[in-house]
Amino acid sequence: MEKAAIYHQPFSSYAYGYDSQTLHIKIRSKRDDIQAVVLIAADPYLQTEGGWASKETVLRKIATTEEHDYWFVAIKPEQRRLQYAFVLTDATEETVFYGGRGFYDDTPENRAIMDYYFKFPFLHETEVFKAPEWVKETIWYQIFPERFDNGNPELSPANVLPWGSKDPGRDDFFGGDIAGIIGHLDYLAELGINGIYLTPVFEASTNHKYDTLNYFEIDPHFGDKETFRKLVKEAHERGIKIMLDAVFNHIGDKSPEWQDVLKNGEKLKFVDWFHIRSFPVTPGENGNIEGKNTLSFDTFAYTMHMPKLNTANPEVQKYLLEIATYWVREFDIDGWRLDVANEVDHAFWKQFNQAVRAEKEDIYILGEIWHDSWLWLLGDEFDSVMNYPFTQTIIENFVEERIKPTKMVSGISEQLMRYQEQVNHVMFNMLDSHDTARLLTRCEGDKEKAKLALAFMFAHTGSPCIYYGTEIGMDGADDPLCRKCMEWDETKQDKEMLTFMKKLIAFRKTNQKTLTYGDLVWHIVDDENRLVAFSRTFDNKRLTFIFNQDSISKTIQKADLEIANEAWNAWTKGVVKNIEVAAKSFTILES
Amino acid sequence: MEKAAIYHQPFSSYAYGYDSQTLHIKIRSKRDDIQAVVLIAADPYLQTEGGWASKETVLRKIATTEEHDYWFVAIKPEQRRLQYAFVLTDATEETVFYGGRGFYDDTPENRAIMDYYFKFPFLHETEVFKAPEWVKETIWYQIFPERFDNGNPELSPANVLPWGSKDPGRDDFFGGDIAGIIGHLDYLAELGINGIYLTPVFEASTNHKYDTLNYFEIDPHFGDKETFRKLVKEAHERGIKIMLDAVFNHIGDKSPEWQDVLKNGEKLKFVDWFHIRSFPVTPGENGNIEGKNTLSFDTFAYTMHMPKLNTANPEVQKYLLEIATYWVREFDIDGWRLDVANEVDHAFWKQFNQAVRAEKEDIYILGEIWHDSWLWLLGDEFDSVMNYPFTQTIIENFVEERIKPTKMVSGISEQLMRYQEQVNHVMFNMLDSHDTARLLTRCEGDKEKAKLALAFMFAHTGSPCIYYGTEIGMDGADDPLCRKCMEWDETKQDKEMLTFMKKLIAFRKTNQKTLTYGDLVWHIVDDENRLVAFSRTFDNKRLTFIFNQDSISKTIQKADLEIANEAWNAWTKGVVKNIEVAAKSFTILES
Repeated sequence: MEKAAIYHQPFSSYAYGYDSQTLHIKIRSKRDDIQAVVLIAADPYLQTEGGWASKETVLRKIATTEEHDYWFVAIKPEQRRLQYAFVLTDATEETVFYGGRGFYDDTPENRAIMDYYFKFPFLHETEVFKAPEWVKETIWYQIFPERFDNGNPELSPANVLPWGSKDPGRDDFFGGDIAGIIGHLDYLAELGINGIYLTPVFEASTNHKYDTLNYFEIDPHFGDKETFRKLVKEAHERGIKIMLDAVFNHIGDKSPEWQDVLKNGEKLKFVDWFHIRSFPVTPGENGNIEGKNTLSFDTFAYTMHMPKLNTANPEVQKYLLEIATYWVREFDIDGWRLDVANEVDHAFWKQFNQAVRAEKEDIYILGEIWHDSWLWLLGDEFDSVMNYPFTQTIIENFVEERIKPTKMVSGISEQLMRYQEQVNHVMFNMLDSHDTARLLTRCEGDKEKAKLALAFMFAHTGSPCIYYGTEIGMDGADDPLCRKCMEWDETKQDKEMLTFMKKLIAFRKTNQKTLTYGDLVWHIVDDENRLVAFSRTFDNKRLTFIFNQDSISKTIQKADLEIANEAWNAWTKGVVKNIEVAAKSFTILES
Repeated sequence: MEKAAIYHQPFSSYAYGYDSQTLHIKIRSKRDDIQAVVLIAADPYLQTEGGWASKETVLRKIATTEEHDYWFVAIKPEQRRLQYAFVLTDATEETVFYGGRGFYDDTPENRAIMDYYFKFPFLHETEVFKAPEWVKETIWYQIFPERFDNGNPELSPANVLPWGSKDPGRDDFFGGDIAGIIGHLDYLAELGINGIYLTPVFEASTNHKYDTLNYFEIDPHFGDKETFRKLVKEAHERGIKIMLDAVFNHIGDKSPEWQDVLKNGEKLKFVDWFHIRSFPVTPGENGNIEGKNTLSFDTFAYTMHMPKLNTANPEVQKYLLEIATYWVREFDIDGWRLDVANEVDHAFWKQFNQAVRAEKEDIYILGEIWHDSWLWLLGDEFDSVMNYPFTQTIIENFVEERIKPTKMVSGISEQLMRYQEQVNHVMFNMLDSHDTARLLTRCEGDKEKAKLALAFMFAHTGSPCIYYGTEIGMDGADDPLCRKCMEWDETKQDKEMLTFMKKLIAFRKTNQKTLTYGDLVWHIVDDENRLVAFSRTFDNKRLTFIFNQDSISKTIQKADLEIANEAWNAWTKGVVKNIEVAAKSFTILES
């Protein structure tokens, strides 16, 4: 037995409250090493005369990665306390007891030593991670407002360019605004999305508005508060949620706060609002000269236009929390996406969570974090993060073809095992954004590839997001080219792609519970044939997805999919006789 | 290479801020599997024209357990951000790149993919765990006030028994009080201890006072506020800190709050102060009948005398925080020990931390948790916990002889690796308490065994605690026998033990920096000869400890201790010629 590979950690995604009654317990072992895992558990205090009356429950294997197997059990401790250990058995019938003090022989004597167990001291309902229900049903649509539509040309900046007249340069303005979004709410409702994520809309000098000047005003080129209020209202009338982008890591260098520092140095009011290392502060267009920082103050990514805010300063905290609650209270927004969330301190985000939840209990708090984010996802900071590690894995296989299906499946399983199950239900999954090249461009124009990746993402738990224009086949390389003007000339829209996306969105909505909660089982992961098949099962409904990346069509045996009953094609809505999946396509069976 | 056994977790004791400039990075591998680990790291944003200019740093092996090796490096990222991965090489020269997305071949192409790295997004000074400096220099002395001395017989309860007239029964009173402690402060100062941990002193009906009636009053049998104020003042004058016991998990059933519930049921004021499942509440002497809970409300350990407080109720929070700050503000206490801390919710403890820190910045917050407590020790809840897993491991070898030295050393190493280094510096280490049998009894009266265990504990990092009477050879089995009256008749005190303890305490104080910060290296772990030798090295001073558990004396070679220079016996204060360690004894060399 490879004991060195066995891993369990109390108070983590390996042992957590799933709801007010249920604990989830997980353990990891070396792949194919262990044959059976049994949980020995009971209330730590409830002893009988015969001693401590523990119960045994068998764990089931729920995921396999390149290196590991993951085992799982859900358990309902009557009195909300649990003392537990594992007994693991390998193929040679070697058995070991594993608890809070490590490995021991599985003897009655060792089982009787209470110190040798892991503990879950008390299941507090307030400590259970609970994300807003509505997010599980949400299909997001990300809008970069300056490029969606120019609904009110009177607001456009003086140097505005004709809509779509050229590929965007870094500093171009095309006049997109909030009225432009309102004008297309019916389009979006028809598309089927039910959540809009807007990149920043507050007053700022750039086209992307990540360099905020004033967090209490809508950028005048985008509109005013009344227009924004109308957007939220009209969106809500169509069942569409609105999420704004909170840029709290840094502020714009043209903001009065930073200008105060530049002009008045260390004497002045706002000096403790920032992270300043020495005076006078040294501006400079780029803080990164040949890999060395040249600035005497902290910024976002060494760009002097975005000085970093000191969120440990109570004044700054108060200011930012006022902003956070203001837009919820006054405009009824439904979510906050938090820019560069990983560089802001946890204590601030805990305050943020409390403040906005007090305004609106089911608000969605989404952190922009590209890496493992477990510490932000314990229930008292974020509901979710932008799930790049998950979607990148999909892209590496389906789009870039840099990895094989086996490696992708391992990466996906690894990522799903990282967080509590209820966190995965509301993960923000996307294949592109204003920060990456567009999906179609990454596919080098191969639309079928893009469709495979999109359908694959929609088949997994989490809340998928479409970047504006993906549905009509827009392309674009890295920033600024991924921020082209939305194409509203219908003759230039890819109508076939639009039909596909509407169908995919509708499918997701119809099958939402299965796709949120369904157990995931991989049936075929075939690198040679570039074939992947898996099922999602919930509440007696099973959906089986088959993805064929190969350039020839494939016939699949029902047995290989472990389908015993009749199956129905849930994608083409037809009866299934032979399961044939065309080249570069997918299908979905219901059974 | 056993990749399945390799483990690193960002934002944990494997990657944390040690101070405002320094990160500690750790990784675990299968024991004896890996030959070298290199950290590839740099600022994530500072790229040069040639790409991302990472630096390589070699990790060193700092601990070995039965299953694992642990590797460590301290690194000072100039701009407080770090992107990092590991390159591991095994004996067969197999090399692998390991980062945030798992294992990849160590190729320049893979090293260039930023997504493949772990991140430490920003080192916030406010997020660095920082324990009070004074605790590192503190030797604690735990007093159970009802049994230390009866300084003011007028306060004694009516049914008081003559001091030490019998072994204590569960409900006996002997009249110990605060005046009794004040009267012996000179004794304690001479003993050398510089911190007193008092079990509860607030008004309560039992002798142990864990069933609080009124948190704002000193128990009338113990004294009054003025006497308590005098205790703190006189202790402080002698350089002795005072830590009180906060019982916030539950309250006494005779408290007005619980009486209100009993009398008035769900109608009344205090009903939301508790965890009540159904009405009427069902009292009963013992909630645990044959392993089943019979109470309709949550308690501590199913004893109806201690109903559990609902710390999610803001009113309860306010009440408890007022208590917590009151005794700091008004009486200048130095620490709070938190009873049954693991069954109270984290959100409350975070509030507690903020509230008491605001009153006194260097207050010590000690949780009573017997198991792995990593989630309470991230810097925003506790400074430390009662380190039972560490001390139990010592007891299992030195006292119970249930495990061999090898297993003990593995357990100690495991425990040291569990937490951030600065947490270990202030861990509360003890070999017995009012909750366990006394050390000497566990040693079955074998004093030499007890001395070995005490000296061994004192040799390690953390703040050691002596349970009252240990220094004069008191014994006693499990509660209530471990709570005997302190023996003040000098003819009945073990003077030899007292001399030993004074010497040990003095040694600890003289060598405090070495014993707090010193690197720990194991030189001899010999199960057959029951011999353990290790060194602690800090700032050019090295102390080498040799423990001989065997019943015959042992001669040790300097080479086996890796001592190159002259050595001096720091325990007997003599020149070292031959290193001979008598049966069941220890020695300490300085070199």
